[in-house]
Amino acid sequence: MDGQSLDRSAGWRIEADLLGEGSVPAHALYGLQTQRAIDNFPISGRTIGSLPVLLNNLARVKKAAARANLAAGELDADVTDAISRACDEIGDGMHWDQFRVDILQGGAGTSTNMNMNEVIANRALFLMGRNAGDYDHVHPNDHVNRNQSTNDAYATAVRLAVFESNLALIDSIERLAAICRQKATEFAGVRKLARTELQDAVPMTAEQEFLAFAAALEEDVSRGREVGALFLEINLGGTAVGSGTGASKDYREAVVENLRQICGFPVVPAANLFEASWDMGAFVFYSGFLKRLAAKLSKICNDLRLLSSGPRGGFAEMVLPARQAGSSIMPGKINPVIPEAINQIAFRVFGLDLTVTFAAEAGQLQLNAFTPVIVSSVDEAVSLLIAGMDILGTGCIAGIKIDQQRCEEILDGSLASAIELVPVVGYKAANEIMKAARLSGSSIDDAHALWQSERVIAR
Amino acid sequence: MDGQSLDRSAGWRIEADLLGEGSVPAHALYGLQTQRAIDNFPISGRTIGSLPVLLNNLARVKKAAARANLAAGELDADVTDAISRACDEIGDGMHWDQFRVDILQGGAGTSTNMNMNEVIANRALFLMGRNAGDYDHVHPNDHVNRNQSTNDAYATAVRLAVFESNLALIDSIERLAAICRQKATEFAGVRKLARTELQDAVPMTAEQEFLAFAAALEEDVSRGREVGALFLEINLGGTAVGSGTGASKDYREAVVENLRQICGFPVVPAANLFEASWDMGAFVFYSGFLKRLAAKLSKICNDLRLLSSGPRGGFAEMVLPARQAGSSIMPGKINPVIPEAINQIAFRVFGLDLTVTFAAEAGQLQLNAFTPVIVSSVDEAVSLLIAGMDILGTGCIAGIKIDQQRCEEILDGSLASAIELVPVVGYKAANEIMKAARLSGSSIDDAHALWQSERVIAR
Amino acid sequence: MDGQSLDRSAGWRIEADLLGEGSVPAHALYGLQTQRAIDNFPISGRTIGSLPVLLNNLARVKKAAARANLAAGELDADVTDAISRACDEIGDGMHWDQFRVDILQGGAGTSTNMNMNEVIANRALFLMGRNAGDYDHVHPNDHVNRNQSTNDAYATAVRLAVFESNLALIDSIERLAAICRQKATEFAGVRKLARTELQDAVPMTAEQEFLAFAAALEEDVSRGREVGALFLEINLGGTAVGSGTGASKDYREAVVENLRQICGFPVVPAANLFEASWDMGAFVFYSGFLKRLAAKLSKICNDLRLLSSGPRGGFAEMVLPARQAGSSIMPGKINPVIPEAINQIAFRVFGLDLTVTFAAEAGQLQLNAFTPVIVSSVDEAVSLLIAGMDILGTGCIAGIKIDQQRCEEILDGSLASAIELVPVVGYKAANEIMKAARLSGSSIDDAHALWQSERVIAR
Amino acid sequence: MDGQSLDRSAGWRIEADLLGEGSVPAHALYGLQTQRAIDNFPISGRTIGSLPVLLNNLARVKKAAARANLAAGELDADVTDAISRACDEIGDGMHWDQFRVDILQGGAGTSTNMNMNEVIANRALFLMGRNAGDYDHVHPNDHVNRNQSTNDAYATAVRLAVFESNLALIDSIERLAAICRQKATEFAGVRKLARTELQDAVPMTAEQEFLAFAAALEEDVSRGREVGALFLEINLGGTAVGSGTGASKDYREAVVENLRQICGFPVVPAANLFEASWDMGAFVFYSGFLKRLAAKLSKICNDLRLLSSGPRGGFAEMVLPARQAGSSIMPGKINPVIPEAINQIAFRVFGLDLTVTFAAEAGQLQLNAFTPVIVSSVDEAVSLLIAGMDILGTGCIAGIKIDQQRCEEILDGSLASAIELVPVVGYKAANEIMKAARLSGSSIDDAHALWQSERVIAR
Repeated sequence: MDGQSLDRSAGWRIEADLLGEGSVPAHALYGLQTQRAIDNFPISGRTIGSLPVLLNNLARVKKAAARANLAAGELDADVTDAISRACDEIGDGMHWDQFRVDILQGGAGTSTNMNMNEVIANRALFLMGRNAGDYDHVHPNDHVNRNQSTNDAYATAVRLAVFESNLALIDSIERLAAICRQKATEFAGVRKLARTELQDAVPMTAEQEFLAFAAALEEDVSRGREVGALFLEINLGGTAVGSGTGASKDYREAVVENLRQICGFPVVPAANLFEASWDMGAFVFYSGFLKRLAAKLSKICNDLRLLSSGPRGGFAEMVLPARQAGSSIMPGKINPVIPEAINQIAFRVFGLDLTVTFAAEAGQLQLNAFTPVIVSSVDEAVSLLIAGMDILGTGCIAGIKIDQQRCEEILDGSLASAIELVPVVGYKAANEIMKAARLSGSSIDDAHALWQSERVIAR
Repeated sequence: MDGQSLDRSAGWRIEADLLGEGSVPAHALYGLQTQRAIDNFPISGRTIGSLPVLLNNLARVKKAAARANLAAGELDADVTDAISRACDEIGDGMHWDQFRVDILQGGAGTSTNMNMNEVIANRALFLMGRNAGDYDHVHPNDHVNRNQSTNDAYATAVRLAVFESNLALIDSIERLAAICRQKATEFAGVRKLARTELQDAVPMTAEQEFLAFAAALEEDVSRGREVGALFLEINLGGTAVGSGTGASKDYREAVVENLRQICGFPVVPAANLFEASWDMGAFVFYSGFLKRLAAKLSKICNDLRLLSSGPRGGFAEMVLPARQAGSSIMPGKINPVIPEAINQIAFRVFGLDLTVTFAAEAGQLQLNAFTPVIVSSVDEAVSLLIAGMDILGTGCIAGIKIDQQRCEEILDGSLASAIELVPVVGYKAANEIMKAARLSGSSIDDAHALWQSERVIAR
Repeated sequence: MDGQSLDRSAGWRIEADLLGEGSVPAHALYGLQTQRAIDNFPISGRTIGSLPVLLNNLARVKKAAARANLAAGELDADVTDAISRACDEIGDGMHWDQFRVDILQGGAGTSTNMNMNEVIANRALFLMGRNAGDYDHVHPNDHVNRNQSTNDAYATAVRLAVFESNLALIDSIERLAAICRQKATEFAGVRKLARTELQDAVPMTAEQEFLAFAAALEEDVSRGREVGALFLEINLGGTAVGSGTGASKDYREAVVENLRQICGFPVVPAANLFEASWDMGAFVFYSGFLKRLAAKLSKICNDLRLLSSGPRGGFAEMVLPARQAGSSIMPGKINPVIPEAINQIAFRVFGLDLTVTFAAEAGQLQLNAFTPVIVSSVDEAVSLLIAGMDILGTGCIAGIKIDQQRCEEILDGSLASAIELVPVVGYKAANEIMKAARLSGSSIDDAHALWQSERVIAR
Repeated sequence: MDGQSLDRSAGWRIEADLLGEGSVPAHALYGLQTQRAIDNFPISGRTIGSLPVLLNNLARVKKAAARANLAAGELDADVTDAISRACDEIGDGMHWDQFRVDILQGGAGTSTNMNMNEVIANRALFLMGRNAGDYDHVHPNDHVNRNQSTNDAYATAVRLAVFESNLALIDSIERLAAICRQKATEFAGVRKLARTELQDAVPMTAEQEFLAFAAALEEDVSRGREVGALFLEINLGGTAVGSGTGASKDYREAVVENLRQICGFPVVPAANLFEASWDMGAFVFYSGFLKRLAAKLSKICNDLRLLSSGPRGGFAEMVLPARQAGSSIMPGKINPVIPEAINQIAFRVFGLDLTVTFAAEAGQLQLNAFTPVIVSSVDEAVSLLIAGMDILGTGCIAGIKIDQQRCEEILDGSLASAIELVPVVGYKAANEIMKAARLSGSSIDDAHALWQSERVIAR
């Protein structure tokens, strides 16, 4: 037996690694390297088990590697099969409680990779009727991690995870955009005042306002698809730094195609595997895309809060659906709590983008050691945005009521048609007329008529 | 019975609020306003129950308010007593599972305040032998929240929470600084090369290097104390916007003194309660302090990683304690995983500071609606820094070994004493000598001697 | 004469606008609206005259508008011709000293637009043999700005300016990438140590290292082309908010095609002109791209500084070209000043990206009032990156010398071939061998042989 | 003659440094090291000559050093006198065109220091009746820079520059706060609606609103004084890394006291000179303070823009002074251009703070090489804030008019006194009354009366 002796009375088993022996809970699927990492990083309290898309894709990578090792004659069929089944179980949502390393971990993802290797090995051992820790038969490194480095296996899984999460994000953007389009149709007949720099400008319709929201979001569906596709370039087979050192030729030729079949995504090998090992450019760019989406959402929510300000002392052009009592002391108050939540999501996304930038910039030589914080930050941003857009769509925008009468009263009482004076009387005279209208509080027509009569007299 | 009818068979009770009736789990201590907020904000998955220092301080505020209301003749002694006991229980860590609203919530903290009001009311009712929801006897708003607004009660609790967390942060900084000082003493005799811009500069000692780490941290103990004290200025009694509207004079005169006694911190009323209601300046400043600390820690960790680079192809002046196997494929590799984790903590703190900045800037008119994201971001930053410094101190720096022989070989083989030539031969000649030494690979003494001999000949 | 009376003795002419009369230097091509803006914004000391690409493209927009107005029968041929000639002169670099408004201006770009309108009007008047300020014949608003709003004319020019500057940026990236490729070829035969997490990893070549730099940059050529193309979507014809209010149908049908011919870029109207009036998404995305490029450059420069650290107490694998004496006190010191400058450029670019994000998020309703700071920040980032890449390429990377002997000594003295033990003896045994090698300071071969001999004995 | 031969026909003189000979414009006060730096860093186009406070303080340091060297017997009286006079001239604003190195320079400030050393040396030579470049008599390094390193002399000047600029910043804050106080007095009688989360809240006065602005600013006067004082800790005498290596004991004992007398600021030596050589914590903290101030200003300007929104379709509670015509197409439009400019200044300051953070974090070992970008970024932020506050105060806030009638109509038509119902009828009944008032559009009194009548009936 390799690296393990069971001490059932104590509920622990003993394993050994580079640093010597250590204890692991007897029935844990993870092993000593994971245990050390759990002990080393009591940091955020959030474990990698909370990153299911990453776990699933790392399991896919492990399955693809097992198959490629089988094809290369480096793994037996039964070990390959047991590993594959363990990977499938993880993909089906099993064993996630065994992924216990903190998301904020040092080591460039090695602990995540080893946590996966150990869980798969021990689960495969179980499926083969053997004991946890019986690594002579399925070894986390020699079998599960065979021909792989964290720097290519984990790195590939990370990219696939972003690719896959991004698909869900795009669905969420599309749902929100569709709701904006529906509201635009609903508000088709509502004339209202357009404002620039918060000052009365020209007439528009509520339909136009909501179609613009939809258009802004739909652009991000397009951009999201483009930038998401960057993560289909993977460095699997490059091992530690891109050279493929330590991996056999037969394995390398087989592994990407196997992964393509297993995950169903059209992955391709990166053109330069060395660069792919350290460059975090795709993450920075993607995070910039998330930031752009967040900025749009925050702007839209600012508009909704402004347009629903009141009920009597504000713009009061629209009423957001009441979601909860607004105040513990002011009776009857209703606040725009959903848009406010989205603003805060945006502020978090901006912060997470900065974290990604710092981490990307800090890469050194052949690797970026800070992938874990990049991965968890991007995951958090995507999750927050999806949650936020779904709440915003169904919990707020879908239920917005426009106060058509007020919209039109504001418009009709405003000086918004002043722009039409310019072709008639010229910019200079139009300015004079409008200045008079503002000062006197009169309408454009009255001010125009007064100006004309004065002009006649002046002649 | 006010706003509640029990339907025990369904396991729910019915309450009513501004929006009408709604269901709450029958035995929940929270009520309908909390339930609505739980439903409204399925965002981050992290609840306010994960902010114990905030909960404790909000309970302290509620207890202080109850006492002030008793003094003002606005609450009965038994209700005051029941409320106080409920507050104490929360301070003792009870009922935290009842605080279930997401930390990323709209509504400027009203949901947190109401969650607290409802839990205290229902717990007080229980302590008085009554049923949950029997709000005629203890009402979340009329009794627990009496004379308070979220905008002063929650705002005060938030400030106290930062003040208190900061004390723990300062302790953590002091522990880490002390470890650096211990190592400095341990390394007192080790001569080594000082480097500027990564280029060989002048001689120094390892003691000086670690004393500088300690000094950098100790400065933040001082700064931390100063900036933390800003949070002792509170706006309790100001109610919704600082005017105190809705609160009685007698209550207002009593409440801050009561809070001072209960929390034990020397709180004072803000000089301008209107400003205190919207200005988030203290948080921005404090977050800037956290950022400064994070930048120092990251710099120190960068140094440790650089000085321990190797083992053969790097600086290799020191050896960090081995914490775990470094690679899934490269045998024998040990990585600086603890410093790498701290770097990532710093990157998160930088991001959180940006989030705080955005939220602070976004305040409007008489309130900043984005306090919840400010509070949770500052809490996260402080927690990460404390965890990180403790790991860094005990898990890394305390166990660092200096390779004295290598340090001194590098120093003695370098050109670090070139600076001493300047007073002797002048800057220009010293440059010539050192240029020759660099090109020929010779020592300073040899190059100096050669230069002197050539000079004699030239004469 | 409209809005002007000359007072030659004083050197000022009097003009009038909405606010009344005011003085303008008698021979200035700009007019009163510009003068007020000059007086209003004494902020950064940097004028819009320092943004030549923006000026040129705004002049192109004005020329296109003049032609479209001619086609629409709204301008006479001679006025159109004079305006066109004035626009061409500006495009040729003339009159830039007349653009004197601060780049940090309020008003959403109106002052830039009016500065342009006034300069063109007065220059056209001169070309027609008339006096500055003789606006009856060529009026800044009624003729030059006819059918346009700042919100479409300036907004279009801003997009074209980014598109055009981006072409220069891409050229600069390509030049730098080509230099990296040349160096890769030059260093083809140099074996060296690859490092991950600053720890000795596996063998690689200097060629591979520089090809990875090139590949990272070449990806940004591709991304830059894609993201730059977003700026070809323009909102010209949308006037104030996207509705086209205030512009004639005939003009609107002609103007984009005229602009396409004049600028030579394949511009297209935005699908939703309302959205295009307020959404700054393209700028946020582009700024994210610039940030990505900056992060790559900073990482590359960090590598160069690390690999050239020394000359005796560092990695010393390469020597950067000496650009200047490194110290005022340490003779013979040479510092990596060019990479250090690039790092600082990157830090500025990161800051500018944040500025763009804040400004984009702050848009309200039908317009983003903060386009001026977005434009000038993007311009600064692009200019710094171009300058930096050119210096880095020709002033540093092109002249790098590799110390082949040292590279190979480090590699051969390292444990970098440990990875090859794994397929031979398995991960566990390989760890034992390498642990022994590290502790004893021996070579892999010796440690392997020792392990084998001990194993034989153990049997 | 040392390192120089004049070639008057060509207009250049030849000097020599570590890298060999090179040309300098014959009459330039700077020398070859400066010339190389000018050539090396064609980056931002902004030279250190645009940082007069830095130049002045660096000249003060040089004068203090010269005096200390005289006291130490290391400089003759006539050389000391010539150097001192040259320093004074620079302090008086002379020779600033001779400081031509780009602010974005590599080399950790060495080029700035050498530019100063060379200008002082050549100017001193002139004052002594000698030729530029005649360095045997006054040498930039051996005389002007004697006993100094860039790392202490430049670092000290940088700190003094921030200290001094901060005094001007504080004055500017005080001026703006005073204007807010004046306006508060002016608006003392104006009742208005307070709003939280943009929803109608409770009554307040315009006086209270402007006093809160003043209070927010006045806090920053206090904070600014505290944080500014951190820059009085200097590392002069520490030379390259804090050890004082290369500087004589006599000089070191005299120099700080001399500087204290010359600059008039109560400077003190840093407690740990090693730490002071690399730690940029004071700059990060100070930049965080600037960010806080910017966030407050941006929030205040957002309020002003919102409260002046209209003139008919917005809040329209106040009218900002008209500064310029607001639109090139919409006649009569006036925009809040001053507040918009301040918002943009804030966005820049936020970006600059990020730049400072990146640069501070990037320090390595005994020095932070990125001080130049820190210095120029802090300088830019301070300059922008001073300019912005002065414009905001005199160009906008001082001229604000409140529309008292509208303020009071809005207040009286609102439901802002709802809060007073709570003590009377309880929170629950108050909610019912206010819900009815909102739905029916009635006043609080009417809704209250209706509720009472219904209650009587219900009994």
